[in-house]
Amino acid sequence: MIEAVLMVQALIIAIATGDKKGVIGFLTGIGAAVFVSAVIGLMCRNARQIMYAKDGFVCVGLSWIAMSLIGCIPFVVSGAIPSFVDALFETVSGFTTTGSSILNDIESLSKGILYWRSFTHWVGGMGVLVFLLALSSSKENAGFTMHLLRAESPGPDVGKLVPHIKETAKILYYIYIGLTVLCILFLLAGGMPLFDSVCTSFGTAGTGGFGIKNDSIAGYSPYLQNVVTVFMLLFGVNFSCYYLIILKQIKAVFKDEELRAYLGIVICATLAIAWNIRGLYSSIGETLRYSAFQVVTIITTTGFATTDFDLWPSFSKAILYSLMFLGACAGSTGGGLKVGRLLILVKSFRRNVRQVLNPNHVQTIQNNGKRIDDKIVLNTQAYFAAYILIIFVSYMIVSLDNFSIATNFSAVVACFNNIGPGFEGVGPTCNFAHYSILSKIVLIVDMLAGRLEIFPILILLSKNTWKRK
Amino acid sequence: MIEAVLMVQALIIAIATGDKKGVIGFLTGIGAAVFVSAVIGLMCRNARQIMYAKDGFVCVGLSWIAMSLIGCIPFVVSGAIPSFVDALFETVSGFTTTGSSILNDIESLSKGILYWRSFTHWVGGMGVLVFLLALSSSKENAGFTMHLLRAESPGPDVGKLVPHIKETAKILYYIYIGLTVLCILFLLAGGMPLFDSVCTSFGTAGTGGFGIKNDSIAGYSPYLQNVVTVFMLLFGVNFSCYYLIILKQIKAVFKDEELRAYLGIVICATLAIAWNIRGLYSSIGETLRYSAFQVVTIITTTGFATTDFDLWPSFSKAILYSLMFLGACAGSTGGGLKVGRLLILVKSFRRNVRQVLNPNHVQTIQNNGKRIDDKIVLNTQAYFAAYILIIFVSYMIVSLDNFSIATNFSAVVACFNNIGPGFEGVGPTCNFAHYSILSKIVLIVDMLAGRLEIFPILILLSKNTWKRK
Repeated sequence: MIEAVLMVQALIIAIATGDKKGVIGFLTGIGAAVFVSAVIGLMCRNARQIMYAKDGFVCVGLSWIAMSLIGCIPFVVSGAIPSFVDALFETVSGFTTTGSSILNDIESLSKGILYWRSFTHWVGGMGVLVFLLALSSSKENAGFTMHLLRAESPGPDVGKLVPHIKETAKILYYIYIGLTVLCILFLLAGGMPLFDSVCTSFGTAGTGGFGIKNDSIAGYSPYLQNVVTVFMLLFGVNFSCYYLIILKQIKAVFKDEELRAYLGIVICATLAIAWNIRGLYSSIGETLRYSAFQVVTIITTTGFATTDFDLWPSFSKAILYSLMFLGACAGSTGGGLKVGRLLILVKSFRRNVRQVLNPNHVQTIQNNGKRIDDKIVLNTQAYFAAYILIIFVSYMIVSLDNFSIATNFSAVVACFNNIGPGFEGVGPTCNFAHYSILSKIVLIVDMLAGRLEIFPILILLSKNTWKRK
Repeated sequence: MIEAVLMVQALIIAIATGDKKGVIGFLTGIGAAVFVSAVIGLMCRNARQIMYAKDGFVCVGLSWIAMSLIGCIPFVVSGAIPSFVDALFETVSGFTTTGSSILNDIESLSKGILYWRSFTHWVGGMGVLVFLLALSSSKENAGFTMHLLRAESPGPDVGKLVPHIKETAKILYYIYIGLTVLCILFLLAGGMPLFDSVCTSFGTAGTGGFGIKNDSIAGYSPYLQNVVTVFMLLFGVNFSCYYLIILKQIKAVFKDEELRAYLGIVICATLAIAWNIRGLYSSIGETLRYSAFQVVTIITTTGFATTDFDLWPSFSKAILYSLMFLGACAGSTGGGLKVGRLLILVKSFRRNVRQVLNPNHVQTIQNNGKRIDDKIVLNTQAYFAAYILIIFVSYMIVSLDNFSIATNFSAVVACFNNIGPGFEGVGPTCNFAHYSILSKIVLIVDMLAGRLEIFPILILLSKNTWKRK
């Protein structure tokens, strides 16, 4: 039902621009959304009210799949993307804020379709169900809503900002909307047309990466590119930091270990790449601008591009490749492994070394001065193992398409981490159109698994979930 | 001192073949070995007798470095490999049973040098210090010898076969020598010359991969290739399985989960690749032979080659790439992550999923029906994290040389997992000669860290280790 409401915006634009095919597409989509939610509503009248952790995961997994199936209808019906699998790929890529595209000519799309395409990023960035939470007023099912939040929000640990989960969701959405509006204003100030500003801001806020131009952001002025860089960086920060700023606890923000590591990595990577690509651009300022943009677009898993980094020297590509795995901060709209998880992994390994050397000492792992529960450490490590295993299994299946090693591997990494472009055959100037249907389906599952942090999708694939009790 | 004794064999061959430069090389090497051990012997007369876990790691790490520094002297002095870093690379590649080479023309080397090169594999396969254990008769320091064994032997958990650690080491060596002799006999029966048989068996037993021909094993008959395939597979099995066979506990061997997984992966990978490369070779038998050889050489981390698998289709390469990370069984001479560790990682992730679904159940992980201690699970996961982090850091440094992504990444993976060849620029028909000195040093450290399973080398690099107490 929410999706139907969201689609109305795109419908209005399609009507305003006289895009008949688009209007039919969106009307079909809205009709399907209303129909499905009516059916589900009728089916679930007598459903049990008590929900468990598992139900939260299943609910999130199924909702995202349903949303994507309905969301791709306008693309298919309007004829923008006639193939169903391609349209699903594009929609999942949108909702999961990946930004990988199968489109060769983006500029040929109508404004309504372009708006819907970018809007999926914005919706997917914060999660639709968190939005639902913010709206719902039920106090009975606080445990379940916490499960929902945990399943849909990125990061190893979801911190409740305030005691009431509903209030937390609202605060997160206020911050999200506020930053998006700020981004639009800054882009307008640089002379970007309103439609471009809104769509680009959607892609930036969700750390998605769908552009509305064939050359992504490359055609805009240096000022606009810098604005996008800064806002991508901001949307990669844990949103609880902004809440702390609102509470005027600036000191706590600057002491946050994950934020410091995140900014440190961005600065180091930018400088290292700028050194490596010196001479490729005319001035130091330009070199730094290109370097910073590419570093930030990759680490935040946005996927905009201002240059073809696939042409850069190997060292720069190696840094970007590594950043692809890393991702942004926990509790941001970015994907990937998350800086917070890296910190836990590094610390747990250091503890392990110390434990081998001093077997009689009990070693603990701390974050921001607080002890991390061993359960979170175990979870993080198991997550990491699953993360690597899924990448390898997907890589093997995708390799059936016989493209180069770097193409196939980076395609999986770029989709699973919700980045967008990879290297070589799926580099910033290429797209995913040439993959087979099987590979596209694998990549669709990867995008969903990456966005929902593996568990909800794995649980959908497990036999036990579907057993009658 | 042991190394001096080992080098005498190569010296005799050099004398017998009238290789003057080789004789001088080996005499210098032996002299250096005797001198260094005499100095260390004098320095350590008054050393404390009680050793801790840390000392075991430091001892193993330093011994391997010292062994490699002395072991490369014959290459340098005889003029076979004039550059010191290149010679060190080749020697470390030998002792760590990697098999990566910087040599363009292997057949131009003298027999004495070739013998020493292959012999390093055989010595490195089981570990020099385990050999020392088997010889030493001290009963006082059983704890320390256990630390040594733990630090030098591959796998997540070192099982003592018999209560006395010294006896365990002896049994392992008997099995190792027995299998090697068997391999030599089978090769001789196929008409391979004695010198070739011995050197090839050394490379097979240590799962090293140095050949004595420029085309590795490709020039030998199908029978000989199959013999090598079978013996590589056998040396990739946990040696305690052979001990069980000697004890006639055949049933326990077939129930071993790691062995079953290992053989299952080899069979599946062979069939999948054979299907993928169908049509490339003239008959099904030939296709299976090439497929099986390449799968086994990679999963056991040997690195021999009978064909250029870099020319195979992407799916085959993806399987081989994934097997590169996997490696053979724990407690074998093979490198890599080990099948046993993969099982623990997969099981721990499954436990994690179950735990999220049923938070109130206590979940355990089992191996061969026995419960695995949580400490081993934690260690395995921390090991895995360190494993991936080291690969990425090394990859970034090596990328400064500006070769392709697949070249650089597979070079690091091939060295760190002690395999030998990688893809593209370091594929089966290429070598590592074109890398810079910095990259070679990084790869040398990777090879040592891979062979000694990270800890001993990391501890050598830690500040705390060198603090005076």
